Amino acid sequence: MSEVLRKATLAHETAPRLALTPSAVKSAFLNRLAELLLENEPVILAANAEDVRQNPQLTKALIDRLTLTPRRIDAMATAVKELAALPDPIGRVLSDFIRPNGLHIRKVSVPMGVIAMIYEARPNVTIDAAALALKAGSAVILRGGKEALNANKILVTLLRQAASETGLNPDLIQLIEDPDKTLALELMKANGLVDLLIPRGSARLIDTVKANATVPILETGVGNCHAYVESTADLKMALSVILNAKCSRPSVCNALEKVLVDEAIADTFIPKLVDSLHEAGVEIRGDAWCCQLDERIVPATEADWDTEYLDLILAIKVVKDLDDALAHIAKHGTHHSETILTQDETQAQRFLSEVDAAAVYHNASTRFTDGGEFGMSAEIGISTQKMHARGPVGLDELCSTKYLITGNGQIR
Amino acid sequence: MSEVLRKATLAHETAPRLALTPSAVKSAFLNRLAELLLENEPVILAANAEDVRQNPQLTKALIDRLTLTPRRIDAMATAVKELAALPDPIGRVLSDFIRPNGLHIRKVSVPMGVIAMIYEARPNVTIDAAALALKAGSAVILRGGKEALNANKILVTLLRQAASETGLNPDLIQLIEDPDKTLALELMKANGLVDLLIPRGSARLIDTVKANATVPILETGVGNCHAYVESTADLKMALSVILNAKCSRPSVCNALEKVLVDEAIADTFIPKLVDSLHEAGVEIRGDAWCCQLDERIVPATEADWDTEYLDLILAIKVVKDLDDALAHIAKHGTHHSETILTQDETQAQRFLSEVDAAAVYHNASTRFTDGGEFGMSAEIGISTQKMHARGPVGLDELCSTKYLITGNGQIR
Repeated sequence: MSEVLRKATLAHETAPRLALTPSAVKSAFLNRLAELLLENEPVILAANAEDVRQNPQLTKALIDRLTLTPRRIDAMATAVKELAALPDPIGRVLSDFIRPNGLHIRKVSVPMGVIAMIYEARPNVTIDAAALALKAGSAVILRGGKEALNANKILVTLLRQAASETGLNPDLIQLIEDPDKTLALELMKANGLVDLLIPRGSARLIDTVKANATVPILETGVGNCHAYVESTADLKMALSVILNAKCSRPSVCNALEKVLVDEAIADTFIPKLVDSLHEAGVEIRGDAWCCQLDERIVPATEADWDTEYLDLILAIKVVKDLDDALAHIAKHGTHHSETILTQDETQAQRFLSEVDAAAVYHNASTRFTDGGEFGMSAEIGISTQKMHARGPVGLDELCSTKYLITGNGQIR
Repeated sequence: MSEVLRKATLAHETAPRLALTPSAVKSAFLNRLAELLLENEPVILAANAEDVRQNPQLTKALIDRLTLTPRRIDAMATAVKELAALPDPIGRVLSDFIRPNGLHIRKVSVPMGVIAMIYEARPNVTIDAAALALKAGSAVILRGGKEALNANKILVTLLRQAASETGLNPDLIQLIEDPDKTLALELMKANGLVDLLIPRGSARLIDTVKANATVPILETGVGNCHAYVESTADLKMALSVILNAKCSRPSVCNALEKVLVDEAIADTFIPKLVDSLHEAGVEIRGDAWCCQLDERIVPATEADWDTEYLDLILAIKVVKDLDDALAHIAKHGTHHSETILTQDETQAQRFLSEVDAAAVYHNASTRFTDGGEFGMSAEIGISTQKMHARGPVGLDELCSTKYLITGNGQIR
């Protein structure tokens, strides 16, 4: 039996008992996990340093994602403790009604069962995913990038230790260690064992999962995010929002990748924008109009308009009007986060209505598409699909539902 | 370009405009459709009679599903008119809050985009699916069973006529006419064109879709439903519920297929049950214990426990206790509808908590798992998956959501 089949079976067999486990036990598990993360900080950092040392080929953005620091471990522990204190997402009564025939119908939240995660070289996802899944009553199967394997092994050991010490079955947490790609494919087709698969990472990873998975998936995270600067925009606000959205953390999915500028203001706004971006160290690409305005702008290729850079690179395009901007976003957007900068309410309303994305903004940075920023405390990623959950996926979104119906012999 | 690609592209291109169409236009479309169904009743019946004539190989249950009658067409028209009068599921504000930084965040319901249906020989599904999808703001691609093609062609002509006459683009409604199975497979993999695929029909159809689809799916309808008669059950109630759940409409997915009887009452209850079922014309299969009690019971094979008969057949098994019943249901159930007959509240609560199904009943017939019976007015099927929607799938469940965020220059 393959590692995937063996471990998925263990997760599947242990999940039903977790579904019936009281909140207090799950909280004790999370609190103990937070302690263990802090107690074992040197060991985690050493394993992570080894991961970084073994992968000099990674880009700067990927090294940023891979690297753990004492501050990041503290943040992981704090997040886990905060999660422990949150209300249990299981057992919520979502609707409750009595039918004319006397049937009492309740819709309640229940666990998914087994949640699998396929992700890349972000070891913090290991803790995030396992903590969120277990709080939501589900077993978890983790398949992280091989670049983070040393750290992930330590983190999963700590997760399983926290489970054992607090009365949970450690088999609720499974790490697929073999980096062979056929195992990831097997996980994508483990129907009947995996109730939900969440890929988290690059466009290529997500595409591979979409093209191969036959288990239910929650598509997350590719963000080719646009800002459209409409002709009436407050240009100072537009500059500030664009700089923030591009530069505050370029390696994440809600970072801005493209700016569409209304042609009425192109000649005045673009040079100012280029000055600010250049100063912030951003490489700027652009269409012919832009390039002719400023020689610091490199010509963009057709591929640029579909690329999520995840780096200090931004492409600028001049558009005729709102319709042109909407058409460009419909063609090149990834349904993640899009923003319009405008003082014109009618244009703003049209943008909000017509853009098909998880989060559509008016006069704000795309960087707010985030569970914490939305007040959800914890999230496992940003869903860009239309089914089940769209936008930040928090505890409630990791649950399923069932109907409980009680009667006294009703027949139809 | 294949028929699927061509028609899916048309649906995909016309869907965004429908998303912005006012409720009144959608209602006018539905009301006109209801009129056209009634006006064209003779033509629909003639086409359907031709379908029935061309398919003498079908079982009685399948002929029941295929056959339209004036009463069923009236019911279709009435359902469509009722749908027109229902509130628009699009544009509901599902949450609305202001963050400490002043960002105003609203979560609103939006259309899926393009909904595809793969189904069998039930021509009423053609109208149900198209009417529900369009009311929910989505274009629809219909792939019905080839046995119903004559009726489906007429029904789609009427759907497109109603659209044209009320200002909707008729390309919002697409019928895949070519019965070639490779076209169904192509539809299952039309990522980027199909936002949601709903298979509706036999276990084999659903399994084929699950094994092949890479577009998001909503699994519906296979119901190997169980009733567990616990030792303290009111036996008269148990008899009445079982007869109703088995016999009131055996060809549908919420019909009862299996009865598990507590061994403490097996010898008294099973003979009474067999008398009633026999009188109702039900073929009875059973385990060794049952067969020894009554010679009218045919021995069940292992395959019986996993079979959805959709016919006047029922299998009975004696179980030791609740745990034994729960284990049997966990192994053989299809996560649709399960019921316990008991006067013991503790046993009932355990059954409700521990059975993993869309609808779990205490002292009521499984036949109530239905949109109308739940007060949802209209449904497209019963979801047996854990993602997105579980149980009856009505208008609200056919929608997606998006976040609209307005600010005044907020940065992170």
